[in-house]
Amino acid sequence: MTIYNPPLKDLEFVLHDVLKIHEADIPGYSDLDADFTGAILDEAGKIARDVLTPLNEVGDKEGCTLENGVVRTPTGFKEAFDTMREGGWTGLSADPEFGGQGMPYLVGTAVSELFVSANLSFNMYQGLTNGAYEAIYAHASDELKAKFLPKMITCEWTGTMNLTEPHCGTDLGLLRSKAEPADNGSYKISGQKIFISAGEHDMSENIIHLVLAKIPGGPEGVKGISLFIVPKFIVNDDGSLGARNGVACGNLEEKMGIHGNATCVMNFDEAEGYLVGDAHKGLRAMFTMMNAARLGVGVQGHAQASVAYQNAADYARDRLQGRDVTGAKNPDGPADPLIVHPDIRRSLMDQKAFVEGGRAFLLWSAMLLDEGELAGNKDSEGLLSLMTPVIKGFLTDKGFESTVQAQQVFGGHGYIEEQGMSQFVRDARITMIYEGANGVQALDLVGRKLASDGGKPVMAFFEMIKSFIKENEGNEALKSDFLDPLKAASKDMQTAAMYFMQNGMKNPNAALAGSTDFMHLFGHVCLGLMWARMAKAAMASIEAEVPDTRFCENKLVTGRYYMQRLLPETGLRLARINSGATPVMALAAEDF
Amino acid sequence: MTIYNPPLKDLEFVLHDVLKIHEADIPGYSDLDADFTGAILDEAGKIARDVLTPLNEVGDKEGCTLENGVVRTPTGFKEAFDTMREGGWTGLSADPEFGGQGMPYLVGTAVSELFVSANLSFNMYQGLTNGAYEAIYAHASDELKAKFLPKMITCEWTGTMNLTEPHCGTDLGLLRSKAEPADNGSYKISGQKIFISAGEHDMSENIIHLVLAKIPGGPEGVKGISLFIVPKFIVNDDGSLGARNGVACGNLEEKMGIHGNATCVMNFDEAEGYLVGDAHKGLRAMFTMMNAARLGVGVQGHAQASVAYQNAADYARDRLQGRDVTGAKNPDGPADPLIVHPDIRRSLMDQKAFVEGGRAFLLWSAMLLDEGELAGNKDSEGLLSLMTPVIKGFLTDKGFESTVQAQQVFGGHGYIEEQGMSQFVRDARITMIYEGANGVQALDLVGRKLASDGGKPVMAFFEMIKSFIKENEGNEALKSDFLDPLKAASKDMQTAAMYFMQNGMKNPNAALAGSTDFMHLFGHVCLGLMWARMAKAAMASIEAEVPDTRFCENKLVTGRYYMQRLLPETGLRLARINSGATPVMALAAEDF
Repeated sequence: MTIYNPPLKDLEFVLHDVLKIHEADIPGYSDLDADFTGAILDEAGKIARDVLTPLNEVGDKEGCTLENGVVRTPTGFKEAFDTMREGGWTGLSADPEFGGQGMPYLVGTAVSELFVSANLSFNMYQGLTNGAYEAIYAHASDELKAKFLPKMITCEWTGTMNLTEPHCGTDLGLLRSKAEPADNGSYKISGQKIFISAGEHDMSENIIHLVLAKIPGGPEGVKGISLFIVPKFIVNDDGSLGARNGVACGNLEEKMGIHGNATCVMNFDEAEGYLVGDAHKGLRAMFTMMNAARLGVGVQGHAQASVAYQNAADYARDRLQGRDVTGAKNPDGPADPLIVHPDIRRSLMDQKAFVEGGRAFLLWSAMLLDEGELAGNKDSEGLLSLMTPVIKGFLTDKGFESTVQAQQVFGGHGYIEEQGMSQFVRDARITMIYEGANGVQALDLVGRKLASDGGKPVMAFFEMIKSFIKENEGNEALKSDFLDPLKAASKDMQTAAMYFMQNGMKNPNAALAGSTDFMHLFGHVCLGLMWARMAKAAMASIEAEVPDTRFCENKLVTGRYYMQRLLPETGLRLARINSGATPVMALAAEDF
Repeated sequence: MTIYNPPLKDLEFVLHDVLKIHEADIPGYSDLDADFTGAILDEAGKIARDVLTPLNEVGDKEGCTLENGVVRTPTGFKEAFDTMREGGWTGLSADPEFGGQGMPYLVGTAVSELFVSANLSFNMYQGLTNGAYEAIYAHASDELKAKFLPKMITCEWTGTMNLTEPHCGTDLGLLRSKAEPADNGSYKISGQKIFISAGEHDMSENIIHLVLAKIPGGPEGVKGISLFIVPKFIVNDDGSLGARNGVACGNLEEKMGIHGNATCVMNFDEAEGYLVGDAHKGLRAMFTMMNAARLGVGVQGHAQASVAYQNAADYARDRLQGRDVTGAKNPDGPADPLIVHPDIRRSLMDQKAFVEGGRAFLLWSAMLLDEGELAGNKDSEGLLSLMTPVIKGFLTDKGFESTVQAQQVFGGHGYIEEQGMSQFVRDARITMIYEGANGVQALDLVGRKLASDGGKPVMAFFEMIKSFIKENEGNEALKSDFLDPLKAASKDMQTAAMYFMQNGMKNPNAALAGSTDFMHLFGHVCLGLMWARMAKAAMASIEAEVPDTRFCENKLVTGRYYMQRLLPETGLRLARINSGATPVMALAAEDF
């Protein structure tokens, strides 16, 4: 039985003391004072803790079942989904024109950390619906929007993304699903899609599939892909549900984790579909969905680490085993708690420093997204686009690693399913894979984003760090413990970027061989920056004699841990990058 | 469906070209020429590939079931166990006096890599029996040895280790199981043990439990622990099986992996037991078993990485996805194979460099064990004792990480149970935990082994590296690519050891906070040494114009990868160690 304590205090600290959102010049942010965010997060936290957490293990154990084409979700999922709908949690950031609450993306991100920590599988049903909403909202005709969005915002109808086919995952140019034009302006979609999360289930009246397919006669490869809406039930003009469409779940995959979510093989047999956006321009529309989804997956990797860490810390305080080598801490008991042992603490500090740093990184990213979308700030948009693969790839790689560390604290008990730690590891594992495997994220980062817009976003990133350091180096304590290590890490990143520029033109492999290393290097610099900003805020609060200075002191302790023990990884990553293409590319394929 | 190709060529290379075992002055080694080891490994490889590999997935899917006290193993396990028995594979290294084949431990290690790669769960039944054999052989009376060992060597009777209780894992001083002296010189054992691998099953006539318990009136804590043999069926004086003893399986644990092995809750209710060795000295006897078991677990972590790597390489060559950025490699096909992509290669090279380096490390360690036990070489014994926690902790940490990388190559297909990659990850995960969680290995290394015998073994280790470098630095190619990086890594390790010596006396936590980092640093230096030795052998073979120079060239390529991209981790580990106790210990327990 796992626990979950919503980290409200820490969320509030990042939102108000670090990001100072209330003062930000972004439409809608002026409403976001501490009372407002406090009320929302408190309520979301209660649902996460009391409704979703107890269902997490149920979902893992029961899984989903397919019988006669009907997919049954685990016991209690339906009722919990009703709770989400009734509380208005499904359309937080959606457009009020279609019934959404119109809140900044930042609020949705903070709330989703709580929900996803509590129950990743469950939250995917809603998360995918949000993603589908985004794509339709950005690219579909007004008619389609009016028809589908309102019910998707309330999650009366849920959404899916149908990209992958058996022979094609990342390489969408290979896809074979066909869309034949029909008489009424719609299309007949045929083909097979696999790994479709929430492809079929019993929690909503209708399921709105977004499907990539090729219109015959269009261009070859990715330039001939179009995006379609394919509803499970045809929607009549009056909004009522009509005939069952030609789409069905052919099988459920047995997976390592996220058992509570139905991962479906979907068969489309001349299903009626409606073109979203322009013909052959489906990939662009899909990317709208994917970019939002990638941020969402970053949240997932981080959120699993967060809840796993809480359970590990709890266990380490409770479980009595061995004695503190420097003298018993629980002399009247049979042994001391695990947490007295330095290596257990090392593990917990690794987790804590990642979880708190990652949280700040995600909320800052969400703020950049709002700044781009709501305030029209192109620089913020560019920076976020650059960092999106880092958010997805780095936070899920480290998030998974962190859940493994949490599981390890439990020793043998961590390996037993009953304890719940295995599930966090198994569930977190998918986040490194879906929405573009992390190697693809690294490729996107180094092969595309780094040089995009003439390298402007990455230069702006370096400039931002430089300015931050310059502005604050008068603060002696901040300088030695935070700014100096940040400066060193940032320099490693600049050297790496320089290496890519100097070598990548004549040999792309010289850059791509170091792509995963660069993604991690970049991630560490981002978390280093976050820790420096958090340290600054904590120091200011201590100086201002806020009531809870202990919280701030602990922030500084954890931040110093990050800077001293985790941030130096940038040096190792740089050394690998500097080794170039040869070590990686030298073997012939058959010699592996 | 997974594949397994026994890496016979690589095993032979390490045994004969690198370790030159045939020339070693160790009793029994003069028999170990290439024909002999080739015949054995070839035969073992066939069993691994043809008999054990197909059962691996069966074991994972079916698991073990408990009904009316009877544990049923997965379909086919029994028959495969008969194959192992009939082939004489169960007593390779056991004493001929009791029916064993008396081969060096080295041979058993090479063979066990093959069996464990093919099927970890299955091999545990035999592995635990070997461990129990070791403890009885080293510590029990002649009468007990004669009674139990012959049937354990043939695995007609299997063995177990019963240490853990619900409230006590590592901290055995807390254990509560009792052993009351009985009239006939035996003891009545009562108590509950958990996590007992192979505790009950249907593959052998009898199960010989080795049980730690306390004789009332003995010293408190670990000094009052005794070791007992508790057979499932009482063995009559004529060797026939008598009454069922008071020991039964109360439950099977549901675990993340190794489903094919029965992990039992064992209840002892006045079961008849026989003291092994002296009263209250059980821990010493148990450590005989544990040390062998720890080497065996190192093999397991490595072996899972080995088979997972093979599958990943195979998939990367087959799966068509995307194009080589430097120009299509499969222009007539719809896409190029995954293996053209630098980040896929980076992952495969990480795995390959670890797997081959780890293999050499394990075989070298097995040779040290033989040198200690068979040739009475105390230095070898001391060195192996020092490295035992590294073999267990480093190879299983990295082994798990390597299986995760292999799984990642498959993208979404790696997450689906059908593909088999998830099982490698889930199975490998246990190796970081059992036989002393890896944090406990790190504690053993830094808290005990490093300073043991006045630090003689670690000084000898440094000296050995220094001599190797000195002897070979005339070889220019070896020097720049292998010896120089090895020297740098070894220097990092010496600096770390020095830090511990200077700071650990006045504050043990200053050393223990860096214990896991030191274990990894040490592990990298060992693999660095192995790669340098392999490179030397490969260069010599190339110079001698052996038939397969391509194998040797590939060895050099892989070795350079290790030296350039993986070995530099020692610098990061050292930086962490040098940060000392404060970052790790500064928070109060309640502030996590």
